[in-house]
Amino acid sequence: MNVSRPAVHPLEAPPLRDGAENAPRVRMKDLQGMPGTPGGLALRLCQFFFALISLCVMLSTSDFPTVTAFCYLVAALGLQTLWSFSLAAVDIYALLVRRHLRNPRVVSFFTIGDGITSTLTFAAACASAGITVLIGNDLDKCAVNHCARFESATAMAFICWFVASPSFLLNYWSLAVSANY
Amino acid sequence: MNVSRPAVHPLEAPPLRDGAENAPRVRMKDLQGMPGTPGGLALRLCQFFFALISLCVMLSTSDFPTVTAFCYLVAALGLQTLWSFSLAAVDIYALLVRRHLRNPRVVSFFTIGDGITSTLTFAAACASAGITVLIGNDLDKCAVNHCARFESATAMAFICWFVASPSFLLNYWSLAVSANY
Repeated sequence: MNVSRPAVHPLEAPPLRDGAENAPRVRMKDLQGMPGTPGGLALRLCQFFFALISLCVMLSTSDFPTVTAFCYLVAALGLQTLWSFSLAAVDIYALLVRRHLRNPRVVSFFTIGDGITSTLTFAAACASAGITVLIGNDLDKCAVNHCARFESATAMAFICWFVASPSFLLNYWSLAVSANY
Repeated sequence: MNVSRPAVHPLEAPPLRDGAENAPRVRMKDLQGMPGTPGGLALRLCQFFFALISLCVMLSTSDFPTVTAFCYLVAALGLQTLWSFSLAAVDIYALLVRRHLRNPRVVSFFTIGDGITSTLTFAAACASAGITVLIGNDLDKCAVNHCARFESATAMAFICWFVASPSFLLNYWSLAVSANY
């Protein structure tokens, strides 16, 4: 074997590939979109940017605090922004040191966090959508409200949820598979 | 062996237990709540009854068609009622003939259906909650609206989603495990 071995192991020693008895452990493919993959990083960055845009659009309206659902949307999007940014940083770190994020505890933490943040974002987006449709269509009061901005913020929040749910589904899938090996 | 064998096999022959080569295939436990288990049937019946109660409460208000979100809630709850009733019937059938519902195609159909219906129910419940809070707290117009009934219907829809999501999560888990054997 003419392979150079690292003198320093900053994180953990690479697994030995001499024996074949641990072959079934690496049977699961590294699907794009899972944490520690370029696809996962792309998902996180999309979540972060859409949540940030939606947050900025909603904060730019002066009268959003008069409606409870819009305040809730701001809170949920703030949480989503922080969560996606943190996970994007973890993904960048994992890609730089070329480490897989396969530890069951880490994956279950990511799954629970993704489930909570994406559910909160979706709930806030739906509540805002209900109010936006009420103001715009049912009551027809768009003249005195920032309907266009409310609609844009709601649409961005929906896109953010749409990008956040694959992260949750892929993490949950990988958790189910790793728990049964 | 003093075990009586059935003379008629209405669906399929029981698997032979002589060889041990197919032992890993039965490693996954039959978690309560999965289709074909008493827990799964209980979940389906809870979903069905909560959706039906919420639907009846919302239909009992005369002015629900004036708000788009309430119409959407009625549509989503109607779909959830039909879906849960059908799946409860399938569960009762599976329990009566003592058959496991482990076919990957059947499980993926159930997972997709559960995902769609529970997402629609949750979205409708969130939109209705946003409007109920807007009418009750922000605008304070409960005197001219059926606030109590709107709130009850929304709460029942949330409980229905809360009972529907374990079905989806367990089905998705079982799909991930069966796809990787």
